[in-house]
Amino acid sequence: MEFTINQIAQLLNGRVEGDGSHKISRLDKIQEGKPGGISFLSNLKYEPYLYTTQCSAVIVSQDFKPSKPLISTLIRVDDAYLGFTQLLESVEKLSKPQYRGVESPAYMHESSRMGIDGYRGAFSYIDKNCQIGDRVQIHPHAYLGEGVSIGNDCIIHAGVKIMRRSRIGNHCEIHPGAVIGSDGFGFAPQPDGQYKNIPQLGNVWLEDHVSVGANTTIDCATMGSTHIGKGVKIDNLVQIAHNVRIGENTVIASQSGVSGSAEIGKNCILAGKSSIVGHLKIADNTTVGGNTAIMKSISTPGETLLGYIGMDIKDFLKSYAVFKKLPDLQNKLKELEKKQ
Amino acid sequence: MEFTINQIAQLLNGRVEGDGSHKISRLDKIQEGKPGGISFLSNLKYEPYLYTTQCSAVIVSQDFKPSKPLISTLIRVDDAYLGFTQLLESVEKLSKPQYRGVESPAYMHESSRMGIDGYRGAFSYIDKNCQIGDRVQIHPHAYLGEGVSIGNDCIIHAGVKIMRRSRIGNHCEIHPGAVIGSDGFGFAPQPDGQYKNIPQLGNVWLEDHVSVGANTTIDCATMGSTHIGKGVKIDNLVQIAHNVRIGENTVIASQSGVSGSAEIGKNCILAGKSSIVGHLKIADNTTVGGNTAIMKSISTPGETLLGYIGMDIKDFLKSYAVFKKLPDLQNKLKELEKKQ
Amino acid sequence: MEFTINQIAQLLNGRVEGDGSHKISRLDKIQEGKPGGISFLSNLKYEPYLYTTQCSAVIVSQDFKPSKPLISTLIRVDDAYLGFTQLLESVEKLSKPQYRGVESPAYMHESSRMGIDGYRGAFSYIDKNCQIGDRVQIHPHAYLGEGVSIGNDCIIHAGVKIMRRSRIGNHCEIHPGAVIGSDGFGFAPQPDGQYKNIPQLGNVWLEDHVSVGANTTIDCATMGSTHIGKGVKIDNLVQIAHNVRIGENTVIASQSGVSGSAEIGKNCILAGKSSIVGHLKIADNTTVGGNTAIMKSISTPGETLLGYIGMDIKDFLKSYAVFKKLPDLQNKLKELEKKQ
Repeated sequence: MEFTINQIAQLLNGRVEGDGSHKISRLDKIQEGKPGGISFLSNLKYEPYLYTTQCSAVIVSQDFKPSKPLISTLIRVDDAYLGFTQLLESVEKLSKPQYRGVESPAYMHESSRMGIDGYRGAFSYIDKNCQIGDRVQIHPHAYLGEGVSIGNDCIIHAGVKIMRRSRIGNHCEIHPGAVIGSDGFGFAPQPDGQYKNIPQLGNVWLEDHVSVGANTTIDCATMGSTHIGKGVKIDNLVQIAHNVRIGENTVIASQSGVSGSAEIGKNCILAGKSSIVGHLKIADNTTVGGNTAIMKSISTPGETLLGYIGMDIKDFLKSYAVFKKLPDLQNKLKELEKKQ
Repeated sequence: MEFTINQIAQLLNGRVEGDGSHKISRLDKIQEGKPGGISFLSNLKYEPYLYTTQCSAVIVSQDFKPSKPLISTLIRVDDAYLGFTQLLESVEKLSKPQYRGVESPAYMHESSRMGIDGYRGAFSYIDKNCQIGDRVQIHPHAYLGEGVSIGNDCIIHAGVKIMRRSRIGNHCEIHPGAVIGSDGFGFAPQPDGQYKNIPQLGNVWLEDHVSVGANTTIDCATMGSTHIGKGVKIDNLVQIAHNVRIGENTVIASQSGVSGSAEIGKNCILAGKSSIVGHLKIADNTTVGGNTAIMKSISTPGETLLGYIGMDIKDFLKSYAVFKKLPDLQNKLKELEKKQ
Repeated sequence: MEFTINQIAQLLNGRVEGDGSHKISRLDKIQEGKPGGISFLSNLKYEPYLYTTQCSAVIVSQDFKPSKPLISTLIRVDDAYLGFTQLLESVEKLSKPQYRGVESPAYMHESSRMGIDGYRGAFSYIDKNCQIGDRVQIHPHAYLGEGVSIGNDCIIHAGVKIMRRSRIGNHCEIHPGAVIGSDGFGFAPQPDGQYKNIPQLGNVWLEDHVSVGANTTIDCATMGSTHIGKGVKIDNLVQIAHNVRIGENTVIASQSGVSGSAEIGKNCILAGKSSIVGHLKIADNTTVGGNTAIMKSISTPGETLLGYIGMDIKDFLKSYAVFKKLPDLQNKLKELEKKQ
């Protein structure tokens, strides 16, 4: 694949500043750019690299003003980041392998059905009574338990396990090693200190356009569904416990954990390693900072929380600033006491 | 499956209050109940739903007194939660698929042995010299390394990896994607800054009735065994490092981590994302709160700890309450200093 | 395998103190030692066990002076821990299974190439255009996507997924269930609150002698490489996000997370559950304590940080000591205010 800078500018509806005749064959990070590569500048933290990069072209926003001379040709677009994303998408369409057909050996029970134009990789396993839509990719080592249903245009990556009765919508992507619908962690303590298994008879239900990260685990409900709303994006190594409900377009970053029966609203953001305690309700548009545990329900939409036990982010940062000076504070207090 | 409310009450040794002739075909959450469903009320937080639910029947405890009129028939039992659990178990027995026999292709080395009435799913792999008991389920994509031994009545779910020399007791359940017996993280620093691998020659030993969650990892010991006591229940995405010992009936919630050579007593509870530092000893009946790191051994049984570095839970909460007011405290101190 | 204590002492260049004629057939932990076993004493925390152990032999350092009588024969070497490690290595060489040849069924696309003396386990999967070096072990259920390259002498354990275009150096070991090269978590928010997938077109590049723990996930770069330097050791359940760079010989303990585009220097240590926020730069030789989140770049090499938001470890521990006494501090302040 090789295009001229002019051709790429045309694709992006952009304006060329400099020589547009050079050929581009590669996407580069701006700090590692080499001739023949194209990059972009959006986060101005990276601006210094613009003046040293050897990229043939850099995508920038309309209103960006370089403060020094530079050697790259610029392509000006409305939003540099979106423009670059658009370029990524075009490249992806051209370079992505086509997965189609059935490799051998693959296992599908005779009672299961799969739509048209799908892919079943070698060593993929589909148990009884599964219903799978059109253009679905079931990659090698993927496992579908009994009675799983999957909509159209889904990608089930290598080694994903989708347990019995799970229901997956359209346009979902489940990344490698994720486990959907494993048993919830439910045990009843017995008088002698032992624990007895509580049967987990529900399922997991992912709505359309859900993405689940690598090695993430989502447990089935005790009854009913662990329900993941439309457009929810879940990163790697996240734990979603039984009976949880997550609203549309909520984003959950890596290593976060949501405990049993918690209900998270729409358009929330949970940063990395955050935790939501069980049975809480979290309002729409809540942002939970990294490493933050939420231990009380949040009823006002739009709050941003941070802290060992989550509190308003500004208050937390003020308190933590004083925390750093606590030994000094203690000394001052002792001084005052002496003077009494 | 359809039973009348009267039949279910008989099964649970319960007493019917209202019309017992309706047919039940579904287990419902109380907040989402519909006619034909049965639910339960145990946690009184959910009581308001009792008066709005359309469930045909609700299981409640003997002494529960409704404060408003309701439309559901009640089944009164000694303990509503246990009663409902009992119902779940009955439903599970009737609905659970029977896994039996050998699907093709499955791999088992000729030197390995498996007892009666077991299941080996397609693409399951059993290496040399494994000893597997009766009624064991080895699901698709499960991997058993050389010399693994497994007792009777175990369920090894899809994609579980049980590494060389591991020893699993009776009635254990290993959930999808868990890794048992991977190498411990042991490296000896060299004078030039590089690290040299320390061979990990021990194994993992799970006693009877252990449950291991999805994508959890338990490392083998450097020598001897990483030892998980009888009845221990481990949730998803937990890390148990090499040489750890965990006492009977201890429960470890999701995303917790236990570092190398730590010894945890019996009947402990580790809440989600808790951490135990290496080489510590934790007394029996210790409860470690969520996100809490234990950095010193705990010698008194029965303590409950919480905090960034774990301390007595009451003390921590008192300190954290003041932490929230630190900016105010600092201001007051400044005021006092001015007045001096 | 049985050797006399004298033979082992000779292997380790050690000196025997006591009867060297006993036979050794087992490596024991000192606290669980039985006749016929050999152990070592390095961490003096374990010294009391030296006087009660029934091990036939214990490896100790040249300068160690027992304070009580003991029954084991001693083998004195320069460094007890290194001596024992050396013994472990010898035992490992003798006991380790040899993986060689191709088990059936295994899948390798005709366009892929593998060097000499390798192993492909049953149900392993190698997609198109992979280049694999000599003496490489590809264990059962391992998955290699299109265009993956692997150097010589690597071990790819059971159920590892190495995604499209990943590049693995020589002498790397990837533990069971790890995912290398899954899509980075990149989504562009749309005006209507939905998120659009940003194509992830880069790869993961592991240099030589890298070790990746069980169920760890390393995402591919948006473009270019997520780059893991030579000799880096990564524990279980770690998350490395897209575009991250990690310098040589850095060690990352279990359940840590490194967010997108962070750059970590050489010879750093990240303890368990630590977090590095995205786009930061961490200087060489930095030590990050357990459960510590680093939220600002670290420019001075050699610092040790601890805390909910990482700060100098000594300062943090001083502040945390006062934190524990905050209710008391608050009371004293109130007293002073009353007296005003």
